[in-house]
Formats: sequence, structure tokens, C-alpha cells
Amino acid sequence: MSNITYGTKSVNTISKGRLLSVAVSLVSLGLAAGQVQAQEAQSVEERLAALEAKLAEVEPQATGEEGFSFNTYARSGLLLGGDLQSVPGGPYLTPAGSVGGAVGRLGNEPDTYLEAILNYKQVAENGTRSHYRLMIADSTTSSNDWTAGDGALNVRQAYVEFSNLASFSGIFEDSSIWAGKRFDRDNFDIHWLDSDFVFLAGLGAGIYDVKFSDSVKSNFSLYGRSFLDFPSDPQNQNITSNTDNLIFTANNDFGNVQWMINGMKAQDNEQRVVGGVQEAAETGVHTMLAYHGDSFFGVSEGNFKVAVMHGQGLGAEAKSIGADGDLHEDAVSTRVGVYGTTYLSDGWRLAPAILAETSEDRYIKGDEYQWLTFNARLAQELTANFEMQYEASWQTMDISPLGYAGRNAVEGDYSRFTVAPTFKPQVGGFWNRPEIRVFASYSTWDDELDTYAGGDALGADSDFASGQWTFGTQMEIWF
Amino acid sequence: MSNITYGTKSVNTISKGRLLSVAVSLVSLGLAAGQVQAQEAQSVEERLAALEAKLAEVEPQATGEEGFSFNTYARSGLLLGGDLQSVPGGPYLTPAGSVGGAVGRLGNEPDTYLEAILNYKQVAENGTRSHYRLMIADSTTSSNDWTAGDGALNVRQAYVEFSNLASFSGIFEDSSIWAGKRFDRDNFDIHWLDSDFVFLAGLGAGIYDVKFSDSVKSNFSLYGRSFLDFPSDPQNQNITSNTDNLIFTANNDFGNVQWMINGMKAQDNEQRVVGGVQEAAETGVHTMLAYHGDSFFGVSEGNFKVAVMHGQGLGAEAKSIGADGDLHEDAVSTRVGVYGTTYLSDGWRLAPAILAETSEDRYIKGDEYQWLTFNARLAQELTANFEMQYEASWQTMDISPLGYAGRNAVEGDYSRFTVAPTFKPQVGGFWNRPEIRVFASYSTWDDELDTYAGGDALGADSDFASGQWTFGTQMEIWF
Amino acid sequence: MSNITYGTKSVNTISKGRLLSVAVSLVSLGLAAGQVQAQEAQSVEERLAALEAKLAEVEPQATGEEGFSFNTYARSGLLLGGDLQSVPGGPYLTPAGSVGGAVGRLGNEPDTYLEAILNYKQVAENGTRSHYRLMIADSTTSSNDWTAGDGALNVRQAYVEFSNLASFSGIFEDSSIWAGKRFDRDNFDIHWLDSDFVFLAGLGAGIYDVKFSDSVKSNFSLYGRSFLDFPSDPQNQNITSNTDNLIFTANNDFGNVQWMINGMKAQDNEQRVVGGVQEAAETGVHTMLAYHGDSFFGVSEGNFKVAVMHGQGLGAEAKSIGADGDLHEDAVSTRVGVYGTTYLSDGWRLAPAILAETSEDRYIKGDEYQWLTFNARLAQELTANFEMQYEASWQTMDISPLGYAGRNAVEGDYSRFTVAPTFKPQVGGFWNRPEIRVFASYSTWDDELDTYAGGDALGADSDFASGQWTFGTQMEIWF
Repeated sequence: MSNITYGTKSVNTISKGRLLSVAVSLVSLGLAAGQVQAQEAQSVEERLAALEAKLAEVEPQATGEEGFSFNTYARSGLLLGGDLQSVPGGPYLTPAGSVGGAVGRLGNEPDTYLEAILNYKQVAENGTRSHYRLMIADSTTSSNDWTAGDGALNVRQAYVEFSNLASFSGIFEDSSIWAGKRFDRDNFDIHWLDSDFVFLAGLGAGIYDVKFSDSVKSNFSLYGRSFLDFPSDPQNQNITSNTDNLIFTANNDFGNVQWMINGMKAQDNEQRVVGGVQEAAETGVHTMLAYHGDSFFGVSEGNFKVAVMHGQGLGAEAKSIGADGDLHEDAVSTRVGVYGTTYLSDGWRLAPAILAETSEDRYIKGDEYQWLTFNARLAQELTANFEMQYEASWQTMDISPLGYAGRNAVEGDYSRFTVAPTFKPQVGGFWNRPEIRVFASYSTWDDELDTYAGGDALGADSDFASGQWTFGTQMEIWF
Repeated sequence: MSNITYGTKSVNTISKGRLLSVAVSLVSLGLAAGQVQAQEAQSVEERLAALEAKLAEVEPQATGEEGFSFNTYARSGLLLGGDLQSVPGGPYLTPAGSVGGAVGRLGNEPDTYLEAILNYKQVAENGTRSHYRLMIADSTTSSNDWTAGDGALNVRQAYVEFSNLASFSGIFEDSSIWAGKRFDRDNFDIHWLDSDFVFLAGLGAGIYDVKFSDSVKSNFSLYGRSFLDFPSDPQNQNITSNTDNLIFTANNDFGNVQWMINGMKAQDNEQRVVGGVQEAAETGVHTMLAYHGDSFFGVSEGNFKVAVMHGQGLGAEAKSIGADGDLHEDAVSTRVGVYGTTYLSDGWRLAPAILAETSEDRYIKGDEYQWLTFNARLAQELTANFEMQYEASWQTMDISPLGYAGRNAVEGDYSRFTVAPTFKPQVGGFWNRPEIRVFASYSTWDDELDTYAGGDALGADSDFASGQWTFGTQMEIWF
Repeated sequence: MSNITYGTKSVNTISKGRLLSVAVSLVSLGLAAGQVQAQEAQSVEERLAALEAKLAEVEPQATGEEGFSFNTYARSGLLLGGDLQSVPGGPYLTPAGSVGGAVGRLGNEPDTYLEAILNYKQVAENGTRSHYRLMIADSTTSSNDWTAGDGALNVRQAYVEFSNLASFSGIFEDSSIWAGKRFDRDNFDIHWLDSDFVFLAGLGAGIYDVKFSDSVKSNFSLYGRSFLDFPSDPQNQNITSNTDNLIFTANNDFGNVQWMINGMKAQDNEQRVVGGVQEAAETGVHTMLAYHGDSFFGVSEGNFKVAVMHGQGLGAEAKSIGADGDLHEDAVSTRVGVYGTTYLSDGWRLAPAILAETSEDRYIKGDEYQWLTFNARLAQELTANFEMQYEASWQTMDISPLGYAGRNAVEGDYSRFTVAPTFKPQVGGFWNRPEIRVFASYSTWDDELDTYAGGDALGADSDFASGQWTFGTQMEIWF
């Protein structure tokens, strides 16, 4: 800094003092001008070079390409019933939601949920890059500004990842390695249902992008998850055990096709008591075959994703891989997910989605879970800052839990339609955020669904029944 | 970056090589010099323009005008009695404090309280600005460095606000809109009492700065607050209910005059049991008339603010609008607040304040709450980094709670005087922070005040009675 | 920004338009060229000066020298036994660990522990600097990504420190002052044991670097700590009291020699019930004599530190000064710590350490605690990103707690050896982080150590006994 200041002053002296006096002398002009020019050019050159070098150092620090950067996902909203009181909600509010059957989220979220992501990136002299990521998250349905008693602040991710490793070559040349607690890099979701196709997360280590050829690359990872305080004595619910579920993953890309295989083992999880007996799975397998499309199903511009997930034993939780320890040793699940995005015409966007699952022997030998959700979000872009959003969901379900978690068998349908006038800084595209919405929804469902579980959204509140208008306001942001 | 590096090298070649050889030839000097100069100027010009453009991009990122920025309010101090043990404290330690009657805070704060504010600002291509704000706060009176059991980390704000909206015009041209959980933008306080005039906060949405004319503008907002787990069965305190208090606000500026109106409704709050009966308010109104002065009451340079707040029913909590669900349906409160700041002479600053309230039928039909606080902080600026601060508070109160919350009627006075030698990076003005203080206080109060409530600061501890020396150290910062 | 843009355009006009036309006229060349050059130089000069000034402002903001910056310590790992389940661990897992006797940490940490440090630095116009530091920390042994129920997010530090004080002179010229909650600046540790020599932390205020001469400087500070909810009735464990431990510190440097003295008092701590009687210390003294060596014990390049700590009464917790309120009024402890770092040859690093303590009348009159740890970490640097790390620990202990905290007398040894293939962005030196490790350890110990306490790592789990292979993966980072 002192050098730069010094340079500024000396050149000032040259340009204002020396140059003008030089200009008076015609005879000595040629050589003098040349000399002074060289001298000055030198000096300007040096200062330019110094500025360029300094700015090249400063820029990545300022933009977060190196050093600290901040990312976020957050939503916060008020979801009210006709009596001006909060109502239950969330995409997982139906009986099917208890096993992952989400419905549309627009105008259906009663909470403040946020992820504050603090990154720190470094580049070593040898070119190896490292990225530390810390994610602090919170969730609450309280509208109050002080939620020390209701909130849930916790650390969801804390890991490091190295890339551009100086000493890696061959099939590892473009690989990155990581360790710590994290969400897997290659999780992907149906945004409108707030549901991942697969959500792999936990504490472990792994390697990404082992490239066998231009179009074939693989990730390998080990994730641990904790199964904490599960009952392990059929005679006494207060006697509990802990164990770890270790998940080994191979996630392979063949061009647009992705094939993921997960094997898992939770030693001694067979001691777990579910429904009075000890038949919980100790091992599991899970696999996903997915296609990532570059158009809207080949019909128009946009994108689409389609995937089939299948799992057995501990792998029968089709989305949150290895996260459910109650699964029966014979549990089998198959899930299908599809979504696409496209513009129907100038200013009209459409994003339809389907999510469906069939699952048997899931928690109790002989139980059955079947559900299917159809969802579509439509948006009409009206001004630079305003659009109308519409979302329709229909879900059908047939669930026989055989008493698992005190739940009763139900069969029926749930429907929901939402209109949401939406403000945003710049209208255009499916992923532009933040958004500020007001919304009104009508939802209706078969009364039988209220009998599934006493404590859930549909069963808990006698005011919240079968046909409902709800409304509210919400912000949503990510960056 | 590679372009910049390339440019640097090419100009080096020109200035050191070409220019000097040119200078030897006198005949071709004129044209050659002109040409080279043009060529070089071009190149220097390009590099300057590139630097200027790049720096114009980088600067707002580095300064937090765009991208991430960090704000804070924090205090952390040790408040000790004569026996070297922590004593209770805080501006709300008297019986009047239980209903908002603060006394001076200097040398009177036993806690570590902090707000960590993470901002992220974006500018869309169309010029619309968005601001995401996350506030994480903590509060504890423990002096230990590990407070997982005593702390209260929670999220107090998470909202987005849009301004400079490209498509807004007319009276909305300068408006901004927001949604999420927040403290209202236009809350303002008497810093020395740690008391807002009004504190409006919760989860909702609104619009600021609808400009009807140059001197008339309004804000409109809807805030929800949660009334959680209040007793709703006169026979059984363990049976509880929840509801929401919805507050609609219009906040209007007419030049220096501000007129705020709040209407609120908490459906089914009438089911709340207070003092054994069900007479809690279900609705409320609250209004504030304030004047924001540009001088010290017209007498000298400085500023002053004066406001009258009046509320009924749920609006009878005069400061924390809509935050108290125990209020009686007939509750009426009127509060007055005044403060000013001025320099008495070079180096002597004075900030006097008055806060007073009268409230009836507040929680129990027939109860009465009356209190008045006079406070003044005086500072003597002595060196670049040091000043002496003095604060005096006198509070008188007459409270007849009719047994609400187990409290007893009291009448009496509380006085407090503090001397605080204070270090700061740069002395000057009322708002310069951070400060590092040591302090000694003497406080005295009528013994009757100890009988108000068994668990409060004056009533809890037999060692902390009627006449007290306290001392300690504290830091305070905001930015 | 608008000025810069304006400048860019005007110079463009000059260089491309005016200059070329000037070059056509030979007669007027000399003077004209001089003039234009002066004019242009002026303009370039102004723009350069503006860029330099702006960049000098922006740079400290971008790099965190001023404004916000982010620091971290974090580790996150999976520690598994042969049955693929989590095992207890941590450097303090042995009976000696309960009184500070750490063993090696490599391949021995079962937790995710992290410190997120948010700094904000300001420079006043008068040159005084201020630094606000907030540290949020978390600790959990759960491998799950949602730990709202298991985590421990809390604020460990929140303080301000002023330096370069404009008005300080004489022996205070280079002093800095601070207040708030913090870890003392001059704590130092044996990284490989995860043990500080001394760890002074709490809430208070102090001054650093009072310079009496070029080689003599001192720090003075007052730290408070909270002794919360200790039993204070021999007849009833549920009756508890609170008090504060106030620690006054003088920490003096004489060149490489450091002499620290701590005196402390916890009013009414004598009322504490320990082991059924009231003999806890109310006061304490603690002192440390340390040498900070610039070589590896004078033998080779590197560094070493050696220190003797001695304490009595409340000072008998030799490391965490003033943090243990259970200490007996006659408690006496003496601890020795030594470590060094050096390169044995190109690519081979060695860091040996010793930590040992003898303590008597610690919690119960007549008890005895003696333990000694020898530890050495060896690393073999193999490629730009990879090294092999080895760590060996041996600890011997002889502890007679006389029933304190339900503990039994034990005598015996613990040994541990770890191999850890380690990836890092840039191999070289003892302090380069982050690291990603996989590891395998073998530990063995005398069975008698299992009888020390039912709930501790060695005593709790019948599967975790006497001879153990453990393995896992971990990341460690600081910046």
C-alpha cells in the first residue's frame, strides 16, 4: 500500500512539473519527448502491471472464488386457515407423506426453514484446491422472533473436499476427494415436491469423478449414519441400543445415464424391536437408474429427469438412503420419479412431476404401502417483477401399516390447488429466486385419511378436515 | 486473468524496445511518436478501461454493497456485587420492568447478548435489488466459554426485501416489499434504556415507502406472532392451546411526524385462562404518534424523539406490539417516551430520556400499573480513546397486579448511579462503538419493591437488597 | 463509479480522435505533442491514481484485513471398531483423561467438532484498530446430518480487542486492551494430544503487551467463570448454589521465557459438597514457567516448548485455569509438558511430546493422581498431496480417587499405535491443513483400567476392551 501511494506522488510530479517545462523547448523536443515518454511509459506500465497483479489477487477474494463465500437456502412463511389461525401443512402432510409421498409445496409450507452455508476455498501453491463447507440449519413453525425454545439450530454439513490434486493423474486426474459430514454432491430433487430422488448424507469419505473414459465416470464413497436409542428389549421399551449404518456407494455416469448402487450394513440392528418383534433388517441394498434429459422429454426445449429406485432391507427407504432403521429384513420398495420443465409459449412455464412408490413388508411382515402423486406447477410471467403461479397436486394412496407406529389402514385421495401471485427481482426461468408470494389454496381429501394417525396433520386437528381453504405469504430464496 | 497477463507483456515490449529505438530517429519523430503514442495510448487505455470495469465489479463485492456482508450487535460483561459474586441486573430488573419499565443500562447488564447478522445482496440485470437477512442471536448470563447447556442460540430474522423494483411506478416507484421473519424496519429505541419506542416483529409480509407525496409516505404490513401453549382450561393448567396473533400495520410519515396504527386479532385467545378466568383479549388496537426532531428540542444541536403510544385489548402492550397474549379484553395502556442528544460544550455530551406508562385492567380486571423513569447519560470526552461516562436513573412505580402471576402490589422508588471509565477506538458522538468499560454503580430502592415477586431480581436474592454497590466490565459493539 | 465511467469515455475520444489528427501536422507537432501528452498523461495519471486509491481501499476489505473475515477449526470423522460400529474414543478416554491426561489424537477422535469464527476489523480515522470476534462451536458424536437433538451449538467467544491505540504511549504504546468472553490470546497447546499447556478462558477484560523493556512485557487480565448448580447441602443433593470464580492473571515474557501467575477466588465455593463434605477450595493460585524454543531442543532445526505448571486449591486444575470448582482446599498439582518438532531428514517429520502430572488431595483429602503420557507423531512425505502419518502413545497412571465421583482406584498402562495414510492440498510442515485421513489403530491397556468408572470410554462398553483394532476416516482443517 505504501509503495502504491509513493508511486502516485512521483508520477504526479513528472506529469505536471517536468512535462510542461519540456514542452517549451522546441529543439530538444524530439529526444526529450521520447525519453520522458519512455520514462513515463515505464512508470505507467509498472503501475498498470502492479494494479493488474493486485486486482488479480483481490478479485477471487472479493467474489468468493477464494476465501470466504456464503450460500443459502431459506423459506419463511405464514400458513393460515379460514379462522386466521395457523394450520398444519408441508408437502408431507398426508398419510403417504409419512413414507415419502410428497404433494406440491406451493402455498403449503407452514415453517421457517433455512440453511446458512459458510464456505472457505483455498488454492495451494501447487494448484490443489480445497473447499471447506459448513452448513448451519434451522427449522421452526413458530412465527415469533425469539425461538430459543422452538428452534432447531444444528450443523448439517462440515466437510472438506480437495480438487485439482497436483499429484493425481490417469483416471484420477479430474477426481476430487472429501471427508466429513455432508450431503452427497450428486443428490438431485423434484423441487416442487420438496423431494430428492435420492438423498444420501452422513459422515464419511469418498472420491468423485474417477474417469474411465470420456463418457464413463464413477464416484465411490463410504457414509456412516447413526441409529440412536432404538428399543432393543421386547419386554421393556426403555431399554435402548445404538448402532451405525455404514453405506458403501458406487455412483456411475454413462453420459446422460446414471446408475447408483448402495450396499449397507448396520451391525446388531436385528436387535431392534419394531411392532413388538425383532425382525429389523441388518443389511440392505439400494439402486437407482436415472436419465438426465437435455430437453422436455424430446418434445420441446427444457429438461427432464426420470429415475427408478429400488431397495431391499435397510435399502427399502428409497430416497433417504440408509436413514431408516425400522425397516423389516424383508422390506422391498420400488419408487419412480419423473419431472420436466419447459416453456409452453412466451411467458408460460410448465413443470409437471410424478412420484410413486410401492413398498411391502416395510416395517411389519405383510404390510403394504402404495401411493402416487401427480403435480404440476404453471407460471404466467406478467411483468419484470411479477408472475402468477399455479400448482395442482393429486395423490392417491392405499396403505396397510398393520399397526406400525399406531397407524391405521387407509385408502383414498388428496387433491390440492394453489394460486400464488409472486414477486421476484427478475422474472424468467424456473430457478430464479428470491420470490415473495401471497397465496390461496384449496385442498380436499377423503375423510378416511384422517384416521391414519392421531398426531399427524390430517388427524390431529378437528378444524382441519376434508375441504379446506388456506392462505398466506412466504419468501423463498437460494443463492 | 489470462487476458490481463497477456496485455501486460505486450506493452512491456512496446515501451522498452520500440520506443527507445524510435527516439533515435529525429526525422521520423513526429509521425512515429504520434503513431506509437496512439498505439500505446490505445493499449494503456484498454488496460485502464479493463481495470476500471473489473474494479467496479469487484468493489461492491468487497465492501458488501453486493454479495455477503456482516452486521452485529453484541455486549458481554461481568456484573459483580461487593462479595465478588454475580448479581442480577439488566434494565428490566425492577417491578416496573416486568411491564416494560426500563432503567438505565450502563453498568447494569449481567449478560452476553449478541446478534450475528448475515446479509446477502443482489442486483438483478433489470436493476431490482434484493436483500436477504439472517439474524442468529444468543443470550446467556454464564461467564463460561462453553454454554451448550445455558445458551439460547436461535434465528430471530430470516427475510428478503426487494427494492428499486424495475416494474414499480407511480406511488410505488420507491417502494420496497418484503416477506419472512423480521424486526420491522422502522422500529426505533431509547438506547440508554435498552427499550424500543415500539418493537414490531414476527413473520409476515409488507410494503415500505408508498409515497403519496413528497412528504407523505406509508408502510403497510401483516405480521403474525405465535401464542404457544397457553392454559385453556380453568380446571386444569396442563391443558393448553395455541393460536396466532395477526397484526395489520399502517405506518405513516408526514415529514417529521409519524403516525402508526396497528389492529390485531388472535382467534380463540378468549379461551386463555389468566388468573383463573377466561377474559383475555381476542382483538386489539395500538397507535403511536411520534415526532423525530432534528435538534435538541429546538434548544441546541443534536436530535430528539418524542412519542405517545396507546393501546387497548391485545394492543395494550405498548412496546412489543401484539406480543403479549395475557392481556385482558378491557386492558388500556398509555405510554410516553422522550429522549434527546446534544453536546453541552466541547467534549461534554448529554442524553436525557423519559419513559412512563399508565395501564389499567391489564391482566386482571381492576389492576393498575403506573411507572415513570427518568434517565440521563453524560459523557466527558478526555482523549482520542478515553472518556468518562456517567448515568443516573430514577424510577417511581405504583403497581397493583391483583395477584397476576403471583405478584404483590408495590409502591416505591428505585435509583441508580453509574460511573464508567470507557475506552473506544475513536471518541466522539453518541453512537461510536465499540466500547470497553469498567464501571461502578450504586443503586438504592424501597424495601417494599422486594416483595413484588419471589423470583425476580429484587425479590430472589437476600444478598441483593435495598442499597447496593456493583461493579464490573463490559464490551459493547455494533456495526 | 459514474466518475470512472465518465473518465473512460473522455480518454477514448482523445486517444482515437484528437491524437491522430494531431499527428498529421508536422509543424505544430512538437508543442502539440507535448501538450496532448501532458493532457493525456494527466488523464491517465488521474485514472491510475484513482484506481490505486480505490484498490487500496478495496484490498483490505476483500482480504479480511478490514471488515469481515472467517476462521475455522474443524474435524469430522468416523471411528469404528472391528464390528463396524462406532467405538468410544478421544484423547481423554483413559482414567487419566478424566483429570487431563491425554493420549494421542490421531485415529482416536469419534466426533464432529468445529469452531466457526466470524471476525470484524475496523480502523478508526485516528489509526486505532478494533477487532470483534465471535466464535460459534458445535460438538457431536452423531454421524447424522440432522443433529438438532444431539448437537451443542453455542457461543464460545464474543469479545472486542483494541490495538494501535492513538492515545496510548510509553509502556502502553504497543498495548492492546479487550473485554468480553474469550480464549486468552496466549494459550498454547500440544496439538497431537489436543491439550493446551494452559487454557485460560471466560468473561472479563485485560491488557496485553505492556512493554517494560525490549525483552520484558506483561499481560494483565481479569477472567470470570461461572460455577453453576453445585450441591451445597450435605443432606440433600438437590439443593444447589451458584458462584463465580474470578481469576486475576499476570502473564510475563522475558525473551523466550514466560512466567504466568494466576490468583483466583470463588466466594462461597466452600459451601460446595464434594464426596459428602464441605471442604472445597474458595481460593487458588496457579503458576506456569515456560520456555519457547526456536530450535528442536538445540539439536536441529524446528521448535520446542517446555513448561511446568503448579497449582494449589482452585488453581490445582493445571490446564483449564479456574474451571474446576470441585477441587479440595488442600489440592496440589504439578504438571510438566514438553513437545518439539523437527525434520529428521528430507520428507521425514517428527514431533515427540511428554505430558505428566502428579496431584494430591485433589477432590478428597488423601487422594492421589499420577500419570505420564509419551507421544510421538512421525510423518513420511511421499508426494505433493500424500504422506504417511504414524503416531504412538504410551500412558502410565496410578490413581486413587477415594471414591470421588464413584470412581475406583486403578493402576496400569495404556498404549496406542496409529497408521494414517493422509491426503492434503500441499504436503510440507507440521501445520499444513486441511487433511483427509484414513487410519487404523491398535490400542491395548491393562484390564484394571476398565474398573475406574462405569460410564467412561473404557468402562462403559463390554465390547471395547483391553486390545482393540479401530479404524476410520477423518478430515481436519484450520485457517
